Amino acid sequence: MKQVMVVRTDIKMGKGKIAAQCCHAAIGAYKQADKEKIRKWENEAYAKVVLKAPTLQDLYNLREIARANGVAYYLVTDAGRTQLPKSTVTVLGLGPDEDDVLDKITGDLKLL
Amino acid sequence: MKQVMVVRTDIKMGKGKIAAQCCHAAIGAYKQADKEKIRKWENEAYAKVVLKAPTLQDLYNLREIARANGVAYYLVTDAGRTQLPKSTVTVLGLGPDEDDVLDKITGDLKLL
Repeated sequence: MKQVMVVRTDIKMGKGKIAAQCCHAAIGAYKQADKEKIRKWENEAYAKVVLKAPTLQDLYNLREIARANGVAYYLVTDAGRTQLPKSTVTVLGLGPDEDDVLDKITGDLKLL
Repeated sequence: MKQVMVVRTDIKMGKGKIAAQCCHAAIGAYKQADKEKIRKWENEAYAKVVLKAPTLQDLYNLREIARANGVAYYLVTDAGRTQLPKSTVTVLGLGPDEDDVLDKITGDLKLL
């Protein structure tokens, strides 16, 4: 079991900003997830992976695949108070879900 | 209302690793937090701030102050499967709680 955060790399964010956006994605997806999956994930030390995708369209595509596969997801839209223009989509959070289910969706992406 | 993640800067972590550890801190503190505070925080767009502290001892000190002030906290210990030695403390998650309560605890720290 794991949770995966996918960060857009075509926008400029500092490392603290990336971390904050990933936190938002993680809690957002967590709240959508099945209770039984959360319980399993918690028993496996809350594994978390942060990946990167080159464009916004990739995040939309991944979200559609997640939806079609019944994977919990949350797409973060930044409020735009700091580094980014208003309503910039930054990170897609997925899961927690089974490793192989998530690997089928994000297996081509590299670690951030 | 906000949630604050404090990252140690005396250990070497890549930006993806920092983000993953912050996600862990965010969910850990979220699970400890008062339901009423969570509800207020959710109504205020889930504000999140990522700060830095120079040493492990700072994280321990901040945790004690949080505890004394009734602020939800979670100290992340990395499993040590990737970039870090086993059981390395990486990030302290605080809140959600009122801005002024958290500012009293972390007001001297800079943004990561």
